[in-house]
Amino acid sequence: MSIIKPRTMPGVMELLPLEQAAFQAFMDTIRTGFECHGYLPIETPVMEFTDVLLSKTGGDTEKQVYFAQSTGSRQQGQEPELALRFDLTVPLARYVGEHEGQLVFPFRRYQMQRSYRGEAPQRGRYREFYQCDIDIIGRENLDLGFDAEIPAVIHAVFQALNIGAFTIQFNNRKLLLGLLEGLGIEGIERQALVLREIDKGDKVGPKGVRAALLRLSLDNDTTDAIMNFVAIDGVPSTVLAALEKWPNPHPLFVEGLGELRQVTNWVKGFGVPETDFAINLSIARGLDYYTGTIYETRLDAHPELGSICSGGRYDDLASHYTKSRLPGVGASIGATRLFYKLRELGLVGEGNASIQVLVTQLDPELRSHYLQFATQLRRAGIATDLWMQKGRFKKQMKYANRLSIPLVLIMGEDELSAGVVTLKLMDTGEQRRVSIDDLVGSATAMLAER
Amino acid sequence: MSIIKPRTMPGVMELLPLEQAAFQAFMDTIRTGFECHGYLPIETPVMEFTDVLLSKTGGDTEKQVYFAQSTGSRQQGQEPELALRFDLTVPLARYVGEHEGQLVFPFRRYQMQRSYRGEAPQRGRYREFYQCDIDIIGRENLDLGFDAEIPAVIHAVFQALNIGAFTIQFNNRKLLLGLLEGLGIEGIERQALVLREIDKGDKVGPKGVRAALLRLSLDNDTTDAIMNFVAIDGVPSTVLAALEKWPNPHPLFVEGLGELRQVTNWVKGFGVPETDFAINLSIARGLDYYTGTIYETRLDAHPELGSICSGGRYDDLASHYTKSRLPGVGASIGATRLFYKLRELGLVGEGNASIQVLVTQLDPELRSHYLQFATQLRRAGIATDLWMQKGRFKKQMKYANRLSIPLVLIMGEDELSAGVVTLKLMDTGEQRRVSIDDLVGSATAMLAER
Repeated sequence: MSIIKPRTMPGVMELLPLEQAAFQAFMDTIRTGFECHGYLPIETPVMEFTDVLLSKTGGDTEKQVYFAQSTGSRQQGQEPELALRFDLTVPLARYVGEHEGQLVFPFRRYQMQRSYRGEAPQRGRYREFYQCDIDIIGRENLDLGFDAEIPAVIHAVFQALNIGAFTIQFNNRKLLLGLLEGLGIEGIERQALVLREIDKGDKVGPKGVRAALLRLSLDNDTTDAIMNFVAIDGVPSTVLAALEKWPNPHPLFVEGLGELRQVTNWVKGFGVPETDFAINLSIARGLDYYTGTIYETRLDAHPELGSICSGGRYDDLASHYTKSRLPGVGASIGATRLFYKLRELGLVGEGNASIQVLVTQLDPELRSHYLQFATQLRRAGIATDLWMQKGRFKKQMKYANRLSIPLVLIMGEDELSAGVVTLKLMDTGEQRRVSIDDLVGSATAMLAER
Repeated sequence: MSIIKPRTMPGVMELLPLEQAAFQAFMDTIRTGFECHGYLPIETPVMEFTDVLLSKTGGDTEKQVYFAQSTGSRQQGQEPELALRFDLTVPLARYVGEHEGQLVFPFRRYQMQRSYRGEAPQRGRYREFYQCDIDIIGRENLDLGFDAEIPAVIHAVFQALNIGAFTIQFNNRKLLLGLLEGLGIEGIERQALVLREIDKGDKVGPKGVRAALLRLSLDNDTTDAIMNFVAIDGVPSTVLAALEKWPNPHPLFVEGLGELRQVTNWVKGFGVPETDFAINLSIARGLDYYTGTIYETRLDAHPELGSICSGGRYDDLASHYTKSRLPGVGASIGATRLFYKLRELGLVGEGNASIQVLVTQLDPELRSHYLQFATQLRRAGIATDLWMQKGRFKKQMKYANRLSIPLVLIMGEDELSAGVVTLKLMDTGEQRRVSIDDLVGSATAMLAER
């Protein structure tokens, strides 16, 4: 038979089993964090109708969409009416629009599923990637307090992931737009151009931003004012105090500042330590979606990763699908990219010891006993592997090593007649003969002692 | 703005949040069962190259495949080179073929992901559906003991799912083929036709099978022999004893019977109670894939659901992708269909109390305290929701009821000055004033008492 080369498309993350176990532990930690904060799960189909999915996009996103079509539909020469989701936000909007009458508002939901984009293949760029999204959706209104809950959730999740110090940075788009309005920079497109340059501050530095703003034909005074604004730095109370003194603030500036102050207080109120969050006035995010608080999250030791969790407040989630006004606030972790980067940095490893015990087969004649031992351990919730192949004992030890199984069970005729088994810790080589009657207790104890 | 009707394609299961929580609990139970038995996770991309995915299919499966294509590829008028997986078996074969050198054999893997088929829409038929597969793959050989481990895993999983009494039925294809060979029914296609009729026994009854066999131009004696064979019934030891007496057994019959006897013994050895498994000689499964032991699982009270978990032994998993011979044995739960059916039967409900506590907002001025309470409870791992909207207390109680939140926290000025909060169980209406200092302990105790 001719062999077809087994391979996957570029831009997907396919992991070996122990790496996959590590990825699952990573995803479980995120999920637990979301659930502890009262967020409920949803899942949506990977395929949406094209008119639903592409209702508000255009430009780059649409170019990257994967269309899907069944054989039958293709044979009839039809255009594809289905496409794969490219994020979890559009499906959320569709979901809330569709099920609005059956949902309980404010609606806290999390969603951890894969999205698809036909990106040009590139290191660390994915065509298939997990996103872990949380959002709170209100009907007609949503209290500003929720803007402070999102950083609290993010904080709990990244602390539990245990990947080093991080800072949740936030800003407010009303403040930014108020700044620009106050400086006479008007019109949504012009404002977008300016904000885009401000947003690059972390990458290009103040000089770079200044030069870029001048290239946008801003005059010197206006450019100075913007540079003074983004230069405001320090702990949140310092930043807020400096902003209080901003001369002749535009009403939108004042409103944004008020929100920033409130959110800062409540983030503290949620118990997020002041070392772990900051106001960053140069964060702007995309213009057409977010309308108030905006977030980014960075690993302190690895700023080169950029934001590992971003989000913000928006005025209306699902205007394409319902006449109800549905304001919301949320954040998203790009889990596939983040896991890949963390692995490169050595901050996550293989899933250690997903299997706890290997019951070896010293003597195939004693199999019925080995089956019983495995069953006892498994019923006690101890992940247990069982050797049943032919193969010398050495091969079985090698197998345990390669799968990072910490404990092996060994029993031959001698042990059986003495009513014991030998438990051996693979790390230290320590062996204990323990009573068959207390197998589960002894294995649990040895695993706990490691 | 014009409104696009929010909707999903037919044949997908999209759940409301509390239902989704129940589905997740269902999936978590399955996963825990797999992991306890030493199975390691893998995930594969939803899209595979078409030449890889369709290497061995043909006929119906290919007609149901969804092809995928990015905008760019479409614009260039190319044929789609990607398609969505229609099961987890082909991706497993591709995965093992691709990563063979890095895998540890025997390779126990589980995979819980969605597959896609362009089925005609029909009640309980899905175009997008979860499959939960376990397989053990050997290199060159795989001990027959693993054929007994699969039912042990299935048994543990369905017991944990707690959906009523079930029976794991098994049979052996060598036995069946040996029967047919012994009766002079030869040729793979002819045998397939006969086995298909035998396999319908549970649906059409003995008379129906008999009539169908005669329609296949089998003579009366041959038909009688087959009917005698499938009529062998009873506990495994009875069935095995009857098979021992089969006259002039073909060597393949003898081999299959030997395997059936061994597997039966080992299934018992794994601690599966004799009430929960049975030999069913009329189970045949698909001809071209399984080569030895085959399984089906039925709910005793709901035979109309058909098999809820099926599988078997195969000689060579990945002959399309590698020259290594990779025998395996496995089983699959069609989780979406099963969950849907169980929900119809009332055997699974909404996820009860995924959120444990609602911190209410009696007085918005006291918000900083409410934030602290929520944080304390969340950090203790108690899933806690927090009311921050405007809205009278009654509305907050209604919210707790609709989300099945069992416990609410209430605190006004009076309580605050006394250093207490009120905890109220929604079910019974029981209220306790508890010290703020012991909030977590008191909440835990009240939740446990329910």
